[in-house]
Amino acid sequence: MAVLIDAHCHTVVAGELDAAAFELACTEAHLPAPAGTSYLDSQVGLAVRRWCAPALGLPRHAEIGDYLARRSAVGWRAATRTLLRSAGFETLLVDTGLDGPDRLDTATLGDLAGAAVREVVRLEAVAEHVASTGVDAAGFAAALAGVLERRTAHAVAVKSIIAYRAGLAVPAERPAAAEVRRAAGDWLRGGGGRLTDPVLLRHVLWAGVDTGLPLQVHTGFGDRDLALPAADPAHLQPFLGAVDGPVVLLHCYPYHRQAGWLAQVYPHVYLDVGLTVGHLGVRAGAVLAECFELAPFGKVLFSTDAYLLPELYLIGAAQFRHSLRRMLDAWRADDAISAADAARLTERVCAGTARRVYALAAGGQRRPVRRRSS
Amino acid sequence: MAVLIDAHCHTVVAGELDAAAFELACTEAHLPAPAGTSYLDSQVGLAVRRWCAPALGLPRHAEIGDYLARRSAVGWRAATRTLLRSAGFETLLVDTGLDGPDRLDTATLGDLAGAAVREVVRLEAVAEHVASTGVDAAGFAAALAGVLERRTAHAVAVKSIIAYRAGLAVPAERPAAAEVRRAAGDWLRGGGGRLTDPVLLRHVLWAGVDTGLPLQVHTGFGDRDLALPAADPAHLQPFLGAVDGPVVLLHCYPYHRQAGWLAQVYPHVYLDVGLTVGHLGVRAGAVLAECFELAPFGKVLFSTDAYLLPELYLIGAAQFRHSLRRMLDAWRADDAISAADAARLTERVCAGTARRVYALAAGGQRRPVRRRSS
Amino acid sequence: MAVLIDAHCHTVVAGELDAAAFELACTEAHLPAPAGTSYLDSQVGLAVRRWCAPALGLPRHAEIGDYLARRSAVGWRAATRTLLRSAGFETLLVDTGLDGPDRLDTATLGDLAGAAVREVVRLEAVAEHVASTGVDAAGFAAALAGVLERRTAHAVAVKSIIAYRAGLAVPAERPAAAEVRRAAGDWLRGGGGRLTDPVLLRHVLWAGVDTGLPLQVHTGFGDRDLALPAADPAHLQPFLGAVDGPVVLLHCYPYHRQAGWLAQVYPHVYLDVGLTVGHLGVRAGAVLAECFELAPFGKVLFSTDAYLLPELYLIGAAQFRHSLRRMLDAWRADDAISAADAARLTERVCAGTARRVYALAAGGQRRPVRRRSS
Repeated sequence: MAVLIDAHCHTVVAGELDAAAFELACTEAHLPAPAGTSYLDSQVGLAVRRWCAPALGLPRHAEIGDYLARRSAVGWRAATRTLLRSAGFETLLVDTGLDGPDRLDTATLGDLAGAAVREVVRLEAVAEHVASTGVDAAGFAAALAGVLERRTAHAVAVKSIIAYRAGLAVPAERPAAAEVRRAAGDWLRGGGGRLTDPVLLRHVLWAGVDTGLPLQVHTGFGDRDLALPAADPAHLQPFLGAVDGPVVLLHCYPYHRQAGWLAQVYPHVYLDVGLTVGHLGVRAGAVLAECFELAPFGKVLFSTDAYLLPELYLIGAAQFRHSLRRMLDAWRADDAISAADAARLTERVCAGTARRVYALAAGGQRRPVRRRSS
Repeated sequence: MAVLIDAHCHTVVAGELDAAAFELACTEAHLPAPAGTSYLDSQVGLAVRRWCAPALGLPRHAEIGDYLARRSAVGWRAATRTLLRSAGFETLLVDTGLDGPDRLDTATLGDLAGAAVREVVRLEAVAEHVASTGVDAAGFAAALAGVLERRTAHAVAVKSIIAYRAGLAVPAERPAAAEVRRAAGDWLRGGGGRLTDPVLLRHVLWAGVDTGLPLQVHTGFGDRDLALPAADPAHLQPFLGAVDGPVVLLHCYPYHRQAGWLAQVYPHVYLDVGLTVGHLGVRAGAVLAECFELAPFGKVLFSTDAYLLPELYLIGAAQFRHSLRRMLDAWRADDAISAADAARLTERVCAGTARRVYALAAGGQRRPVRRRSS
Repeated sequence: MAVLIDAHCHTVVAGELDAAAFELACTEAHLPAPAGTSYLDSQVGLAVRRWCAPALGLPRHAEIGDYLARRSAVGWRAATRTLLRSAGFETLLVDTGLDGPDRLDTATLGDLAGAAVREVVRLEAVAEHVASTGVDAAGFAAALAGVLERRTAHAVAVKSIIAYRAGLAVPAERPAAAEVRRAAGDWLRGGGGRLTDPVLLRHVLWAGVDTGLPLQVHTGFGDRDLALPAADPAHLQPFLGAVDGPVVLLHCYPYHRQAGWLAQVYPHVYLDVGLTVGHLGVRAGAVLAECFELAPFGKVLFSTDAYLLPELYLIGAAQFRHSLRRMLDAWRADDAISAADAARLTERVCAGTARRVYALAAGGQRRPVRRRSS
């Protein structure tokens, strides 16, 4: 089984979940499903029963009620450990911006998964933290840069969710210092909190660029807080033309073909199939193949984008391995690729490209990286 | 064969059709095809010959000329009856906004189809009718509400074609009464007619919401009167966030993946595959599978959107059944779903979800529904 | 093997290419791939090794280094001849706007390919040439019309790259003469050069319409000079509604489903699969099938859009033939089309539709066409 690096994920709940909470964690919705329906009557629901039921000793396609009963009987910690270990990760790159008191800390997550853990720093979360420290408008930019420098000292990437807050039609230019000061003043006078000012969001994005680390950007679908058309990664073109460090487009669906083109024409742009592959179940293979249309093969990365449920880690990994194998088998059957090339592609998308982009040494150690002087 | 409810369709021509009229009714174009080509040299043309020729006693793939000759020899009424009966519908939900003197009334349509018929009320047609009754600007809103209340007393849904008139980027808010009065004044002074004023269209949409019935919305492709990018259902997000009754996105193609996401993140949003499945012939299965990526399975509805030709009913039904079966067979072959779940999904998309959303009792009777007080 | 007309292509390099230049000619990128990756580790790279290696006497899937060594040993001229002849074209329609001193002239290209050559005139290149002749603002429009009349006397089509310069959201109306004069004045005072003024670009587009020849329009992906969302062919709707001569939408991906709809609802609109099929390798069949969803079969055209490398001609042709055959075999296996219809469709998309649209006599001679008086 190919070594697998999960190049973008989150942590999981530390505790038991009732059926309603489990169901809601399986979807991007944040309200219960209408009476008579269930979010588990979906690709994710089928995938839980397909990939996770056997890991907990049940038959494939066990009913979801039986699965949840077994999960509860096993206990969340043992179930988490079993599910994560079944996924077979070497390394997890964890976005720590969604931590909370009822979540596993990353060290425990790594222990349970039997995997190395490296951190991805969520830029907006850092900015909102800085706003809560009593900084004033004049000091905001420097304070952010300072905190980011400390927070990213051992991180492998930074991540932006500007798609959720202002959309991806980001102007190419950094906002001027005076603009940032003015916007920071407005925000801080309002008490900080959720950052939605487009000037500040852009400044925070550039502060991420200035760390010299690869920049992961949420694109495409997610929860309904985002306006989907504004999350088309093609809107990033002006910004992509203005930076030169690695930019990893996360998720991308249903704009993954656009993302594949960006990954072809911008040498520093990458396409990460996380969330997409995990949410599509049996359809993951069809979409994966669409990602491999225009994107050079060395520009496609695997991740799960799993969050809250260890099931989403296992589904992401197992479905990806299965779908990639089937895709390559079909290419082989068409005599379009040699066995050696198929193996090379597999190694690269499962781990090799993540190692290169995120400067990870084999075994998950981060190699030293030269910071760009900002 | 699973019970099938056609959750959105129109009536058919009452009379013989010549070859040119038949050809034009098979396409969304409204001008003849260029010399040397035919709209029947298309997926719809192949589907007529595949699914309808055998129903009229000809071999599969009979030439279209032979088909039309046989249709004519049988006579339009007998042909209509045979084609509709071959489709095997239990219930038809008919948008009555495209009626006309040369069209079958819905009672006769139901008789010929051997199916129950329920009405879907087209909002813009009602508004244009109200404008023709001599109402003044100050009375327009109340008159519309009154007529809608009467017209929807036995209806199962209302339908909007605002995509054709103003696009789907509808602001979330109801227009103010004064705005509506002013816009109604302008429209009525101009003699009413085709409603294109965006404020009034929005008011009419909300008047539809106020009926308390499910709201069907045309999205995606249609004829060239619409600007395709403005018909992307994702533009509806602000409006969808402002309402809570069922909203059914019709057609959706080529934005059906966007629609699938909307159906996942908005509990009250549904995806209807009508028109799309009927127009794509052998490709219907591929697109159907894309609809089942993000949409929970209980959020996908079948319809034909058939209009003018009984052939489009039969094609819609037969191609859908065939494509759904093949899709599920492929999922089964991949061991991604159990046989029981595949059967459950089939029952739901063919009839169960329509029964729930449109409050139809088994056998096509409409169950009483509590109206929302507006 | 079906006769094949390449309805849109460019010429090739006259000379040897080193590995770096070859790699860059295989992609729409214009900067080298990041260290550790290669643009040949891609669908195009696989396709070179699949389709071209055997033509030069190597095994399928030969390593790219071995392929380039063999190509070099054979010599560029013999390799070009072999690759082009292996593609088996009857006629090439060559966009001559990308000529240069190190490129084959079209006569030699035709000789090496063993094919007739007809010219496609790139409108913006003609306009930029006219600007360099010392014309003044008042004389620009007439000079352009005059040069276009001469340049298109033996041409089969004109071509616009307005997608690159201003996007496809072109207003329906011709710009007024005074507007054109003013814009020409600004441009000429600045010394002419790359034309980016939207008014002039629109004027040039209409000058192309006035030639009475079919108009090819770049849509969809290309190099990063274009803003991808602005290259969605659906933005052309107002312009398409204002013209009535044939308009051929080139490439289209990832908006090819939008293009298929345009080809259905506008009788004079066509969809050309060039560039798309050639760049997608094993995935060409999946995308080709998407093109055949809404587009009437007589509205789909084959081309390679090959440029610089004879390999791209052979890949375009061989992959297209292979993918079309597999697509039709799948339709046959589903009993969705008869063998006779599949053969008819093949003949049409390979050559028949190009003959009709571009008024080519069999064997590649251009039939006389009546010019529209402007």
